[in-house]
Amino acid sequence: MKIDDNFFMKLAIDEAWKYQLLTYPNPAVGCLIVKNGEILSIEAHKEAGKAHAEVNALKAAYLKKYPNDVIKAKNSSHDIHKYLIENHKGFFNDCEVFVTLEPCNHEGKTPACSNLLKELKPKRVIIAHKDINKEASGGIETLLKAKIKVDLDCMRKEAYDLLYPFIKWTSGTFIFYKMAQTLNGSIDGNISSNSAKAYVHALRDKIDLMLIGGNTVRNDKPTLDARYIAGRAPDIMIYSKNRIFDTNIPLFKVANRKVTISNDLFKLLDYKIVMVEGVYNLLNILKEKLDFIVLLVSPKIRNGINALNDIDIDFEIVHENYIGDEKIIYLKKKS
Amino acid sequence: MKIDDNFFMKLAIDEAWKYQLLTYPNPAVGCLIVKNGEILSIEAHKEAGKAHAEVNALKAAYLKKYPNDVIKAKNSSHDIHKYLIENHKGFFNDCEVFVTLEPCNHEGKTPACSNLLKELKPKRVIIAHKDINKEASGGIETLLKAKIKVDLDCMRKEAYDLLYPFIKWTSGTFIFYKMAQTLNGSIDGNISSNSAKAYVHALRDKIDLMLIGGNTVRNDKPTLDARYIAGRAPDIMIYSKNRIFDTNIPLFKVANRKVTISNDLFKLLDYKIVMVEGVYNLLNILKEKLDFIVLLVSPKIRNGINALNDIDIDFEIVHENYIGDEKIIYLKKKS
Repeated sequence: MKIDDNFFMKLAIDEAWKYQLLTYPNPAVGCLIVKNGEILSIEAHKEAGKAHAEVNALKAAYLKKYPNDVIKAKNSSHDIHKYLIENHKGFFNDCEVFVTLEPCNHEGKTPACSNLLKELKPKRVIIAHKDINKEASGGIETLLKAKIKVDLDCMRKEAYDLLYPFIKWTSGTFIFYKMAQTLNGSIDGNISSNSAKAYVHALRDKIDLMLIGGNTVRNDKPTLDARYIAGRAPDIMIYSKNRIFDTNIPLFKVANRKVTISNDLFKLLDYKIVMVEGVYNLLNILKEKLDFIVLLVSPKIRNGINALNDIDIDFEIVHENYIGDEKIIYLKKKS
Repeated sequence: MKIDDNFFMKLAIDEAWKYQLLTYPNPAVGCLIVKNGEILSIEAHKEAGKAHAEVNALKAAYLKKYPNDVIKAKNSSHDIHKYLIENHKGFFNDCEVFVTLEPCNHEGKTPACSNLLKELKPKRVIIAHKDINKEASGGIETLLKAKIKVDLDCMRKEAYDLLYPFIKWTSGTFIFYKMAQTLNGSIDGNISSNSAKAYVHALRDKIDLMLIGGNTVRNDKPTLDARYIAGRAPDIMIYSKNRIFDTNIPLFKVANRKVTISNDLFKLLDYKIVMVEGVYNLLNILKEKLDFIVLLVSPKIRNGINALNDIDIDFEIVHENYIGDEKIIYLKKKS
């Protein structure tokens, strides 16, 4: 196996995927720091408002060499920026910084990463994908002006896949379909483990809207909140022509939530990030509009209702990972 | 993410899995070399008779620093051993060698890896799993006698899963079930890509026996050779009570192959490595005897015959990887 820029960037991309969608409205970004060939850190942006991937990675890299440094206790982005600028003593001058997205160039909730890098002066910054957000872009120019070597487009395709949800919700709506099944495609009964359920609740906590089929509501009588992680319950749109529902169904009783009943799917475009939960019926109706399918696969073979119907869709696997013992697979429709 | 011994060993284990089963009768082994924190190489044993993982990794590590060294042209294990022992000039003294299995201690088709390491004197050898083969073991003692620091059992569970086929075929029979399906469990028609088919043919080239159901033979009229890789066609056992088959079915016409028709599954135990191809019927009959299921998943949703029947089995995913755009998943029945 070749140990090259692609190898390092792949590790940064994989780390970023662990927080995919959970960083909304920010992009998922990963960063890896190498000092004289040694990997010092691999970190990611974890949640909007928290430190960017570069900041987490720079801090972890410094701690790798000075495990007892006071930076350990600094958690806010501002504090880490300030501390590193004042105390780096040239530590990063022989470092290479691999980052999946162009470092941000503007002061938002957190200070600009390009400015921090400019001060720390690493030997080289390797960037997989340019920023598409006009407000935050310009990071490359800042680095080049500071005479830092910049290499662009390393693993660009993989970085684009990672960035894709952000690109969609920045310019319009990102719609993803969440499904859970066994290895053999059975969707019957209680499939997922508790850690997979907690992950789904973490997604619900982040999204703008959840779309669910009317029959699923009538049959399953779900709550559709984020109680496993004590999170925010998302607003709900029930896809149904028939507007009559038993209001004792728990989802109607969750506080601080709006429930809409509609069969007008254009309403989805009023939102930035929409999660669809349902069976293949809804998948069929929405298939041209879906950006991702997030498929949770439990490693069992089970006799049960199968998700098969008349759909034929070809996918590309853009990423996959584990949640506990189960698989999570991110699929994109092949164009 | 922590950059520690486990991180490095995981990379070595993942590299070894790329050649899982293809190294038969040898174990799949991976090796990673770190010099002052820098990863120099990640290599694996690829095929019986060819260089061991350690030898491939030591050569690649040396080449990483001296890309034009004459070692580049040396491919036989003997030549690499000899060259490194005579020319290392202390290069490996500050290296750490991560290897998924205790280095072999005996001269077989290739010289002993423990002896090579003894001469190169790395700073530390990290071993995930002790050898279980009495003839080849003793590597750790050789290293310790040479005053090389040895750490044992790093990622032992993952290394055990990697070693498991070898453990089984060394002490008896390793039986694995090969299946191909779409995402939603459809097993209908022509599912796999050409690269997945080539992989299956590479497996067929290595195994002692292929077991296949009588009805599959009657319906599909298969050839079951290894033509995609110009490999050896395996011997076949057709599982059937009824011994009457149309001898024009292509599998009977392949040269240098033995075909047995039997319903006595105890005969499988006369072989070291058996691949079963078939549908869930045979899986149900064999489920207590199977060591692995090797599941190829094509990222499509298809309307078609589903593999569902009355089987309920829980699995552990021991590894997964890509073959081209498709997934390969190694499953072990949960005990």
